Amino acid sequence: MTENTVEFGGQQLTRGDLLYEGKAKQVFATNDPSIIWMHYMDQVTALNGKVKEEYSGKGELNSSISNLLFTYLSNQGLQHHWLGSISATDELVKKVDIIPLEVVTRNYTAGHFVSRFGVEPMQQLSPRVQELYYKSDELDDPFMNDSQAVSLHFASEADLKTVYGLADQVNELLVALFNKIDITLIDYKLEFGRLADGQIILADELSPDNMRLVDQKTGKSLDKDVFRQKQGDLRVGYQDVLQRLQDALK
Amino acid sequence: MTENTVEFGGQQLTRGDLLYEGKAKQVFATNDPSIIWMHYMDQVTALNGKVKEEYSGKGELNSSISNLLFTYLSNQGLQHHWLGSISATDELVKKVDIIPLEVVTRNYTAGHFVSRFGVEPMQQLSPRVQELYYKSDELDDPFMNDSQAVSLHFASEADLKTVYGLADQVNELLVALFNKIDITLIDYKLEFGRLADGQIILADELSPDNMRLVDQKTGKSLDKDVFRQKQGDLRVGYQDVLQRLQDALK
Repeated sequence: MTENTVEFGGQQLTRGDLLYEGKAKQVFATNDPSIIWMHYMDQVTALNGKVKEEYSGKGELNSSISNLLFTYLSNQGLQHHWLGSISATDELVKKVDIIPLEVVTRNYTAGHFVSRFGVEPMQQLSPRVQELYYKSDELDDPFMNDSQAVSLHFASEADLKTVYGLADQVNELLVALFNKIDITLIDYKLEFGRLADGQIILADELSPDNMRLVDQKTGKSLDKDVFRQKQGDLRVGYQDVLQRLQDALK
Repeated sequence: MTENTVEFGGQQLTRGDLLYEGKAKQVFATNDPSIIWMHYMDQVTALNGKVKEEYSGKGELNSSISNLLFTYLSNQGLQHHWLGSISATDELVKKVDIIPLEVVTRNYTAGHFVSRFGVEPMQQLSPRVQELYYKSDELDDPFMNDSQAVSLHFASEADLKTVYGLADQVNELLVALFNKIDITLIDYKLEFGRLADGQIILADELSPDNMRLVDQKTGKSLDKDVFRQKQGDLRVGYQDVLQRLQDALK
């Protein structure tokens, strides 16, 4: 149970209005306009929210994994929105204006990339593939290219260059980390936002809800595909990922 | 009726094997390995070939329009595969290795761009949008981005830069020409190919089968949308386009 008020960095922060509820997260204002309060829920969804279930403890697993990964990225010099954890399921992040684009990096073929282009699954992609999806539940997050994103004024060409550069930095760091714990990072989604001064930084969460992770020894999925494909309790894989990350990063 | 042998540029050319049959064109070899014989059929299709009909005289209209547009582009200094007309429905073109990508330019919103992104139709796009589609009947010509095209080895980054640059040159020239005859060039598909020396040039055809053209005075479609939307005989619009082009280019 998280209190509504916490002390953080020498100031009293109080949780305010719910700004946004995503598929597995709630986002609240605080009394500091530059700080946002994020709460991880136990909910899991598939097919853009059409299938929904509760797994107690899942919010805590995602929060813990995300916190470890953001801390790792900071230690490697990468800037992002994460400020710190305030409970097992809650964290504080910098307020950004989210760019309404999901940025997907694919290191291996999987999912609808396979059916869309008629390729074999689990083939290494070289160079890695980067994709944009317009964040719109109503339109089912349509895939879009750079030219469309620029012409529809979601981002400038310079913004996209920044975003892709940051995504490549993240990819290099995450691939190295996951390789160290015998996990292949197949593909994943990132989101980016702008700080008040215009700087674009990594935002959102970093968890197996948004990644495909495959155990290099067993070939088993350790991510939300377990839920999507009804292969059992997704928390087993999430717990495994958390344990390995804790061991590697301690 | 086209003869099987023609004299062209001082040499005897004989039509050889059928290399490829598209939705509205047949492509034959000739006795000169650097020259291809293209025949425009009267067939018209929609929904990637799922709907099909014959319109006598349509092949002749498309061939005439395509010939006028390629000649106009040559006169403006743009290189392409078209060599010359040898009958009302047949032409000779340079042999190229076709890059398996359809390059779509959109000057105004229309068609599935509207439904995909939830925008209003007939809105001017600034800058114009450029899109790639992987030419694959089996996969229904999936939309792809540059990163996918590069990673799947359809084209290098440098190739794509060349292709987009050529598409922009074509767009500037075609928009200017169609504006002169009171037609708005909404969107259209181009294809490109490589000559034996590696140079990338414009290929395929330039006709209302692959363009959306709207009469600026009446707002009526003058292209294949008339067939797609069952609005009557598409040849009326094609004939109108041909007549206006002949008047403008004589």
